[in-house]
Amino acid sequence: MDLDLMRELSVRTDSRIVLLVLDGLGGLPMEPGGKTELEAAETPHLDSLAAASDLGLSRPVAAGVSPGSGPGHLALFGYDPLRYRVGRGVLSALGVGFELGRNDLAARINFATKDGSGRISDRRAGRIPSEEASRLVDLLNERVRLEGVETFVVHEKEHRAVVVFRGEGLSDALTDTDPQRTGLEPLPVEPADGSPEAKRSAALANAFVREADRVLEGRHPRANTVLLRGFGMHPALPSFEEVYGLRAAAIAAYPMYKGLARLAGMELLPEGEGIAGEIETLRRSWRDHDFFFVHVKPTDAAGEDGDFERKVRIIEEVDGLLPRILQLEPDVLAVTGDHATPARLRSHSWHGVPFLLRSPYTLPTARSFGERACAGGSLGVFPAQEIMGYLMGHALKLNRYGA
Amino acid sequence: MDLDLMRELSVRTDSRIVLLVLDGLGGLPMEPGGKTELEAAETPHLDSLAAASDLGLSRPVAAGVSPGSGPGHLALFGYDPLRYRVGRGVLSALGVGFELGRNDLAARINFATKDGSGRISDRRAGRIPSEEASRLVDLLNERVRLEGVETFVVHEKEHRAVVVFRGEGLSDALTDTDPQRTGLEPLPVEPADGSPEAKRSAALANAFVREADRVLEGRHPRANTVLLRGFGMHPALPSFEEVYGLRAAAIAAYPMYKGLARLAGMELLPEGEGIAGEIETLRRSWRDHDFFFVHVKPTDAAGEDGDFERKVRIIEEVDGLLPRILQLEPDVLAVTGDHATPARLRSHSWHGVPFLLRSPYTLPTARSFGERACAGGSLGVFPAQEIMGYLMGHALKLNRYGA
Repeated sequence: MDLDLMRELSVRTDSRIVLLVLDGLGGLPMEPGGKTELEAAETPHLDSLAAASDLGLSRPVAAGVSPGSGPGHLALFGYDPLRYRVGRGVLSALGVGFELGRNDLAARINFATKDGSGRISDRRAGRIPSEEASRLVDLLNERVRLEGVETFVVHEKEHRAVVVFRGEGLSDALTDTDPQRTGLEPLPVEPADGSPEAKRSAALANAFVREADRVLEGRHPRANTVLLRGFGMHPALPSFEEVYGLRAAAIAAYPMYKGLARLAGMELLPEGEGIAGEIETLRRSWRDHDFFFVHVKPTDAAGEDGDFERKVRIIEEVDGLLPRILQLEPDVLAVTGDHATPARLRSHSWHGVPFLLRSPYTLPTARSFGERACAGGSLGVFPAQEIMGYLMGHALKLNRYGA
Repeated sequence: MDLDLMRELSVRTDSRIVLLVLDGLGGLPMEPGGKTELEAAETPHLDSLAAASDLGLSRPVAAGVSPGSGPGHLALFGYDPLRYRVGRGVLSALGVGFELGRNDLAARINFATKDGSGRISDRRAGRIPSEEASRLVDLLNERVRLEGVETFVVHEKEHRAVVVFRGEGLSDALTDTDPQRTGLEPLPVEPADGSPEAKRSAALANAFVREADRVLEGRHPRANTVLLRGFGMHPALPSFEEVYGLRAAAIAAYPMYKGLARLAGMELLPEGEGIAGEIETLRRSWRDHDFFFVHVKPTDAAGEDGDFERKVRIIEEVDGLLPRILQLEPDVLAVTGDHATPARLRSHSWHGVPFLLRSPYTLPTARSFGERACAGGSLGVFPAQEIMGYLMGHALKLNRYGA
């Protein structure tokens, strides 16, 4: 989306938009001639919605490219995922619910094992149990002190944690310390460009590793060092308020998606219990916002597990709850995913993502919601970045372009 | 369209292209499950043409964005409507048939009423009748003289007119004087950038308003001042001749569309009476040109009036005249619109525009011409800017790219 164009044309109105994202919705048949997860699911409500909707297949990043959760959502929110990059460190920080500031530098930590000669013998410290890692994280927070910056270490799970450096003049143009194989020494963090910020940040990151080694010494049989990778900073997205003039809210159960929504300046609403809880939150907050991003996670998890049937059942559960959203009478309702996660592939994939948009101004082309129905829809196959333009247009929130 | 690529590849041949534009052709069903205007119309000739054509849905500007007539036509002619902007002043000048030069600066004028304290009490001077406004325009043309530029004032209708400043070193980076509400003083024209051209132009525009106030004093009970807005200059489009090697002609009944065609360097032909008159002009000029832009206005007007049935009838009228165009045996005939104007919305809209291209080299996919038939066509959903490429290709007027 051309964000400058959106800034120029967007107007505030009373109309309300709901963007319902089933994570990893797109799918594939398990065998030739078969149906996709969405096509196989019994979805009477989505089907009758489709019969009143514009349909299309959206592409999150580029032909053949499987998007991570960061780029997938950035595209849904109208940001160019190739321009705005969300580093792994940033996603990890968002994933643990850390409120990342504009100047913060984040990196993924792995607890690891270093042998007597200084070489890495286990990149995951024997997948150290979460309780033990959590204690070590506390130690690092208590004892590591660096000149000129604050550091925050937050535990994720098992051997994984996040470190955030907070201070002025930092840069994420940095290389990883993880040598990617055992038997090698960890690498020093190097500045990836010639800026003073990158040099200073590299020095700080290397100091952090030295300090961590000192603090960890003798504390745990395996976790005696840390590997850093995926340095990233807040991508400084222009906010939904500024670009679209929207008072946007997010309803999501998982911290990473909350974090992505917060990057876009959305207000986070308490998600409640399960998918039904999310929709109940939507109902309660209906008057306070004009854009709602509702995120449903379990479809993606089922796809990642290769569990076609479970993904089908979750889609059917969402279908059963759809009338509760429709009762609110949103002016625009879109149902889609941030990418495909076909059970067939057990991972995110590059395939087109089914997209449905219901408003009073649609040109319906099918009577069911599924990948193949969407492929022949009135929106065709299109970049996911354009979705926000369609939502704004159908909500009558865009002025005419040119006289 | 990549105009440089067209410049590089285009070759002159004897083949002839007709681009028949039904303004605002795209439509929507009035109610769920219904047909669009084009789908509802009885169009035996367009339908049999479609059965021999490539079909697609074109998008003029961007997802969700409703184009004005300027951007809509620029896209049809292959120019990037986000790069080449046609200001309201320019469109107004074109609309009254003023021959805008490359250095001319145009602005829309509203006659308005200023009270004793200098505040605007009526932004339209009580919608002053055209005859009275026309007299005031004559007065301004006789009596306003500015240092270093010529000025031309042309009346449009009622309180609306256009002023054109002609001279060297002008700029349209200027703010409006219209305060947009009554009870406020008019604003001074300010330069919108730091260039000397903008400063000089702002001073000239402000001097024009002062002079106009002086000339108008005591001449009319309500129209005692002018408000200026929509400053714009000739967008300096590369010509059809230069880019495509085409001797292009335009047949259009309304001055604005003639003006847009002239911006692209097309020759204007006398349009004759009604749609049949336009086609008669086409026949008479058939030997003199190899590209014909034929513009039909009433479809858009019917859509803007919310008159579904009238739009249907106009489409049917065009269908009835189609054999006269086919008799000429154009090598390439395209039928489309510059944007959608669904009666459902009573305005221009962002929806896909049906596009049909008949040549000896097509891949037909349907037996009727309509939005949904086009959505599934061999051209898919595509940017309107690409249309000129297709026309040139099917006319065999493009060399191969690369060996």
